[in-house]
Amino acid sequence: MKFCSNCASPVVKRVPPGDSLARWVCDACGEIHYQNPKVVVGTVPEWEGRLLLCRRAIEPRYGYWTLPAGFMENDETVADAARRETEEEAGAHIELVEPFAMLSVPQVNQVHVFYRARLLDLEFKPGEESLEVALFDEARIPWKEIAFRTVGLTLKHWFADLSRGAFAFHAEDVWRPR
Amino acid sequence: MKFCSNCASPVVKRVPPGDSLARWVCDACGEIHYQNPKVVVGTVPEWEGRLLLCRRAIEPRYGYWTLPAGFMENDETVADAARRETEEEAGAHIELVEPFAMLSVPQVNQVHVFYRARLLDLEFKPGEESLEVALFDEARIPWKEIAFRTVGLTLKHWFADLSRGAFAFHAEDVWRPR
Repeated sequence: MKFCSNCASPVVKRVPPGDSLARWVCDACGEIHYQNPKVVVGTVPEWEGRLLLCRRAIEPRYGYWTLPAGFMENDETVADAARRETEEEAGAHIELVEPFAMLSVPQVNQVHVFYRARLLDLEFKPGEESLEVALFDEARIPWKEIAFRTVGLTLKHWFADLSRGAFAFHAEDVWRPR
Repeated sequence: MKFCSNCASPVVKRVPPGDSLARWVCDACGEIHYQNPKVVVGTVPEWEGRLLLCRRAIEPRYGYWTLPAGFMENDETVADAARRETEEEAGAHIELVEPFAMLSVPQVNQVHVFYRARLLDLEFKPGEESLEVALFDEARIPWKEIAFRTVGLTLKHWFADLSRGAFAFHAEDVWRPR
């Protein structure tokens, strides 16, 4: 059972008039409680052709490697979120370059956005959600220990673009493997 | 007063342990009710150098012109949302080309994403949320009657890119005018 956050009455899931999808509707106060995808924002921080990865100190995927990223918060821009997450998870000082990838993950109702970034120095250190933070060249990326498919795809696009000498913006849909 | 959607107890706004921002927290069941930005997705539908705009039949900005766009829903990709909104608001048959713009609007906790699109035919017609739908070349765009700043900026980028003969991806932050 779910309740209305405005009036604490029970809510029911049904299609409101003029809508086409079922929503949590409160018949007591009339509120429709929409649920929408969340935006996860991160960076691909570079230092001389090597990329900065964080080893996760939290579930899901504890111990696996990821790019610094996390949920975008209210009152910030996408770029703000990218800088904040990189500072929080990797203690890294960066300059954003450009948006690099946008990946829809419909099974978990998320959109992942990654910016290219330049490390300004080598003073990075793991934040509370990271076990360690390290730079990897393409050959040393721990490809079998990457936490999320969106991160693996973003890393592959980055090194492919580096090889051909031009960075593009990559939009992709990530469905659960069958 | 706000209530927990899980257990109907009153919630309080405070910073949870290990967090840095105030959240709606339920002390009865322990649930933290995060609030995050929403994604608005639309298209810039083109037919021979002219763009398709919709005149809004709903508030906010009733009677003003906009690109077809709306809130991304759970269980869909960004591209799905772009196609769905274009069909719903303009009855238009399109083919998506590429992501074109991503605009953060932090004051309303939204991220607006627009795809370039090609109209496949001229069979468009206003949906329930539109008064009329029409094609405009650059000189005839109703610049003073555009519903939202993100739409105006996206239209300007589109015609500028058309003039220079190359379309780029545009990321931008839109703050309320002072």
